[in-house]
Amino acid sequence: MNIAPVPSPLAFVPFVSVSNMMKIINGMGVANAIAGIADYIEADFRRWESFDKTPRIAAHSHEGVIELMPTSDGETYGFKYVNGHPANMARGFQTVTAFGVLSNVANGYPVLITEMTLLTALRTAATSVVAARHLASENAKTLAIIGNGAQCEFQALAFQKVLGIEKIQLYDIDQSATAKAVRNLASSGLTITSCTDPHNAVYGADIITTCTADKQYATILTDNMVGAGVHINAIGGDCPGKTELHRDILLRSDIFVEFPPQTRIEGEIQQLPDDYPVNELWRVITGEIKGRTSKSQITLFDSVGFAIEDFSALRYIHDQLGEKSHCEQLDMIADPDDPRDLFGMLERADI
Amino acid sequence: MNIAPVPSPLAFVPFVSVSNMMKIINGMGVANAIAGIADYIEADFRRWESFDKTPRIAAHSHEGVIELMPTSDGETYGFKYVNGHPANMARGFQTVTAFGVLSNVANGYPVLITEMTLLTALRTAATSVVAARHLASENAKTLAIIGNGAQCEFQALAFQKVLGIEKIQLYDIDQSATAKAVRNLASSGLTITSCTDPHNAVYGADIITTCTADKQYATILTDNMVGAGVHINAIGGDCPGKTELHRDILLRSDIFVEFPPQTRIEGEIQQLPDDYPVNELWRVITGEIKGRTSKSQITLFDSVGFAIEDFSALRYIHDQLGEKSHCEQLDMIADPDDPRDLFGMLERADI
Repeated sequence: MNIAPVPSPLAFVPFVSVSNMMKIINGMGVANAIAGIADYIEADFRRWESFDKTPRIAAHSHEGVIELMPTSDGETYGFKYVNGHPANMARGFQTVTAFGVLSNVANGYPVLITEMTLLTALRTAATSVVAARHLASENAKTLAIIGNGAQCEFQALAFQKVLGIEKIQLYDIDQSATAKAVRNLASSGLTITSCTDPHNAVYGADIITTCTADKQYATILTDNMVGAGVHINAIGGDCPGKTELHRDILLRSDIFVEFPPQTRIEGEIQQLPDDYPVNELWRVITGEIKGRTSKSQITLFDSVGFAIEDFSALRYIHDQLGEKSHCEQLDMIADPDDPRDLFGMLERADI
Repeated sequence: MNIAPVPSPLAFVPFVSVSNMMKIINGMGVANAIAGIADYIEADFRRWESFDKTPRIAAHSHEGVIELMPTSDGETYGFKYVNGHPANMARGFQTVTAFGVLSNVANGYPVLITEMTLLTALRTAATSVVAARHLASENAKTLAIIGNGAQCEFQALAFQKVLGIEKIQLYDIDQSATAKAVRNLASSGLTITSCTDPHNAVYGADIITTCTADKQYATILTDNMVGAGVHINAIGGDCPGKTELHRDILLRSDIFVEFPPQTRIEGEIQQLPDDYPVNELWRVITGEIKGRTSKSQITLFDSVGFAIEDFSALRYIHDQLGEKSHCEQLDMIADPDDPRDLFGMLERADI
């Protein structure tokens, strides 16, 4: 026989390439996509206890780390592959790239494989606004962003869309990064102030996002920079040995985290004793514990990124594929007519 | 701008579909491919201590399990996604499907994504012959295969090619499975005997492969079926609660395993105390310990499948892609001109 094999429909897994992810996001607008993902994250955090939770599985090397972040709600399973290589940028590669998979728990078959570098940027901003919705003061209008790299614009647009932020104050140790962000946000409708000093950037801000990229202990915010009533959204400290906030700020704040066993290793609170009290964000979302309780309280979301957020983002993208065809079909699952006859499938392919 | 985005060369990851995997395997011949993978496995087991080793990460459900199996040698990282769903076959799905990824540790970028359902069948047979090369008697000519499902023909051809087996004796509780294997192996040059009783199948065999699929404690081999000098290649017992051999056989055998912490949970030796002495196959390969030491010795390879074997198989396939184009290029890695400007890449795509 010389028949070219025609894969069965069961062989195919939808794949969202970088190009198609850009089409999906631009088709609905970045801010709308982030807001949509935020709603999925909030819904999934509300049913937190139905998820399998495990700290990420990391393979460390001198150059960086490769991680797998799996989770499951019993019906759907998802995982993200993500690398973190601080030296990549200087060599023309991305510091962080990612892809992810969503599967059907009932039969184990993948139902989606997708780029997640862009999607992770969106879900990180989405997680930030989910937390801020519950922790920032109600009339927050001004956001400071310290660190104006790849995450900066997504933060700005997310806070504008979901929290009603009107003004942003930017600072980066590299002024060209700030200039890039100002250019990219020129038509956003936000009032933008570029600062050459971090003290000016945080002055008068209701919310402070820190998202710097150095893999080291770096004190981005010192104690005197943080006034009463501020909400701090700390997302740059996300691995052992990398923090952004002075310890004294932590001691003055009420601290909210995603998954304590992971945050104690990777987050700002790695500076504190292992039993230092922290609050789980999902309990705030369900109403079990209070978020902000006074105008003068300093709230800190010590965010490191958790598998359930990626799961939510994967679910969101999977749901967008329904009617549109923003994906390719990968012939990825061997599907013999008789499951016991894998060899026969191979032999009959005759290619 | 309305310029369609042209992904940078860094955006692409080679993908081996099921169709292309069949082309690669059939192009060189199944037995040659298994022999090639066996050499890669032997080479990697020889440098066992240079690998990160961790038991697989499993997400269990009522219907089955989804597992991630990562490992790294410090230069290359690999993982396999694999499901195991015993009820799938009755619903027209594969019990086990898999795909895998190989990455560059230095920058974290994937260098290969491939189907692994077929590839896993080959690497399982390859691992069997690596072990038998060191553990079976030198003049082994007859192989019994108990369980004639998806793995059966790969076992037969692997043992013919690498060990010089001339005769196979087949048994399955389902005679149509045996008939399928006989048909598929008709032109192999092997002398084939179909048996309707497992005692007949093992009679006179130098090597016994057990590869049944039921997810339960099932005694496929009882003590009286195993004579002096036999090598048992037990590959069907590969998860908690699933074994194939009567405990008394284990007590009469010298037991060889891949990675003891995993085998004690998943292998035949889950029937034995946690401190029961077993031998690591890699130490036999390096010559540190002896394999077969006498003609009358019963050797047992209690195989459950380990991440390094998948790593070897991924390396092997990656090396086959060099000159030929048996792969597609997936636009999977977002690669902005300026790594800090992910948002600008998205905006400039304008799609």
